[in-house]
Amino acid sequence: MASLSVLRHNHLFSGPLPARPKPTSSSSSRIRMSLRENGPSIAVVGVTGAVGQEFLSVLSDRDFPYRSIHMLASKRSAGRRITFEDRDYVVQELTPESFDGVDIALFSAGGSISKHFGPIAVNRGTVVVDNSSAFRMDEKVPLVIPEVNPEAMQNIKAGTGKGALIANPNCSTIICLMAATPLHRRAKVLRMVVSTYQAASGAGAAAMEELELQTREVLEGKPPTCKIFNRQYAFNLFSHNASVLSKGFNEEEMKMVKETRKIWNDKDVKVTATCIRVPIMRAHAESVNLQFERPLDEDTARDILKNAPGVVVIDDRESNHFPTPLEVSNKDDVAVGRIRQDLSQDGNQGLDIFVCGDQIRKGAALNAIQIAEMLL
Amino acid sequence: MASLSVLRHNHLFSGPLPARPKPTSSSSSRIRMSLRENGPSIAVVGVTGAVGQEFLSVLSDRDFPYRSIHMLASKRSAGRRITFEDRDYVVQELTPESFDGVDIALFSAGGSISKHFGPIAVNRGTVVVDNSSAFRMDEKVPLVIPEVNPEAMQNIKAGTGKGALIANPNCSTIICLMAATPLHRRAKVLRMVVSTYQAASGAGAAAMEELELQTREVLEGKPPTCKIFNRQYAFNLFSHNASVLSKGFNEEEMKMVKETRKIWNDKDVKVTATCIRVPIMRAHAESVNLQFERPLDEDTARDILKNAPGVVVIDDRESNHFPTPLEVSNKDDVAVGRIRQDLSQDGNQGLDIFVCGDQIRKGAALNAIQIAEMLL
Repeated sequence: MASLSVLRHNHLFSGPLPARPKPTSSSSSRIRMSLRENGPSIAVVGVTGAVGQEFLSVLSDRDFPYRSIHMLASKRSAGRRITFEDRDYVVQELTPESFDGVDIALFSAGGSISKHFGPIAVNRGTVVVDNSSAFRMDEKVPLVIPEVNPEAMQNIKAGTGKGALIANPNCSTIICLMAATPLHRRAKVLRMVVSTYQAASGAGAAAMEELELQTREVLEGKPPTCKIFNRQYAFNLFSHNASVLSKGFNEEEMKMVKETRKIWNDKDVKVTATCIRVPIMRAHAESVNLQFERPLDEDTARDILKNAPGVVVIDDRESNHFPTPLEVSNKDDVAVGRIRQDLSQDGNQGLDIFVCGDQIRKGAALNAIQIAEMLL
Repeated sequence: MASLSVLRHNHLFSGPLPARPKPTSSSSSRIRMSLRENGPSIAVVGVTGAVGQEFLSVLSDRDFPYRSIHMLASKRSAGRRITFEDRDYVVQELTPESFDGVDIALFSAGGSISKHFGPIAVNRGTVVVDNSSAFRMDEKVPLVIPEVNPEAMQNIKAGTGKGALIANPNCSTIICLMAATPLHRRAKVLRMVVSTYQAASGAGAAAMEELELQTREVLEGKPPTCKIFNRQYAFNLFSHNASVLSKGFNEEEMKMVKETRKIWNDKDVKVTATCIRVPIMRAHAESVNLQFERPLDEDTARDILKNAPGVVVIDDRESNHFPTPLEVSNKDDVAVGRIRQDLSQDGNQGLDIFVCGDQIRKGAALNAIQIAEMLL
């Protein structure tokens, strides 16, 4: 069983920002594939956060080529040390000059930092891949899931001296659309009803730590520490903490509604969502009910999903084995299961599916770095 | 914060079956309202289980009148002692003779016990309120939520010498229909898409204990003990453990589909469900998307729900306060919130709502005892 992986298979819980453990080289002169003279110069903005740290893990795992890497964060985190691919780095304070000579900047430092420093970086010729919601609905900014709509960014390349912004979609949207898009291409989704089961990680490393701390406290009979969410999270669940808007939907739900339309380039697709936080560490689950324009039976749907890039099908009815957040934690692929003909729709134009994906990885860092790979 | 209530506000976690702590009487001659010469003789079958224990709590809380009470369980549990309302009882082994002279029997000992002993009790003139799924879909057996379809059992009374069976619906169905029915009465539900967030308690006291044990183990870095579910439950969620049927829906989901039709006496209502277990102790949550025949705006829906018996509305958008499992734990009422016009349906014939209810209480014991009250 993967008990440790829930809480520990992640440098977030092992103290003040050591780098991800890597096999140490026996020879210090070993040349890493990813450190290359002809690679781009990259910057990681918000490097000390949950997603920032995952950026580094994914860059390393995928041997992303780079000739230099700048570790950037707020003044508060500046001066901290990071070891990455056997080299030591000191975290620098983010300033406009941070982007001089930088080809690609990966941003995950919150919307206000993106709004302020994103355009500054673009003006200096940097292509910004932004994980915040700041620019997602900006018509001029592509919103990209590489497996879904790579064409949206086809004219943008790094190292041309011409800056640009590309937005990384919200985690729940990415995970849902990884599964829904291959089916949409075949049968056209008309309507989608989504209920989410979202992990602590979406609210950052501090939320994950609070969930762990609260759980210990509750088990010891102590009152739980409630700093991040202002309520008990251990052994509880609650409506997503994003602001609730005028019509009663929260911002997280509206991201699913609006981003889906933009990514699919389909203003008519109908989406409703109920977003809920559950006491899980780092992977989201989503129950998705789909209504199609054209017939699509469950066997065809399963075959389509089995062949979809970045998707793995776990749909073993006999042994009751379907996707779980734990199984997809620290994994790249989004898992889909419970694929079945919707009993509540006539004909075979409806399906129910259940999707799980690592919120920090495909929901954020991996997707951003896949975007960065397309810039090369 | 209600930390202790998650795990401890329940005699399930305080050792081998002590009775629910009650204020002790200063005078042993105090007459309890509920112990009455003219009350029915009742039996609790499966009294040592999670729901059996809750039967006792609810009987006591509601001052249910009785002239005698029989504590029944399997041979394995026979001989155990239970203190109930200041009297000591010894658990008796369940036999056909257990029902001699018993007016009302509350069953919660699993489907096979119900199938065997239910008809035996009925033959001896007992009215059986059965919490198992054994008779729910039997056309001759009323399936009752007292707030929803009391008329289904209007001809059945206790103490007439004429036995009968009444089935208690599945917990997820009860909790869903407590909120959906008042809206259904006004606007007629045509279709319902449900995703559940189900607590450990639905799988019994041992499952709750395993969730607690596993959580401790995972926090200590140990492999989790997996006896009940054969997988890690702590910091994880998974598709409901009920058997998966031929069309890919599991039994829990099919209960929601079929029981809704029977309780509403509406063969045409379309229901689909995705049932998921989450690491919560004793209250279920459900995300419910509703499609109506007639228009129903959210303000009217909210008013209807505020006036519905057994329902409390928690729908404070400004402070992001909506129902949570923890808040409804050990409570009678089902809580409803996130009441909003469905963005994915044209006109105002769709609503999204979020419902929470205590699985052991309204989902099982309370509903059964409300049924028993209607027998008097």
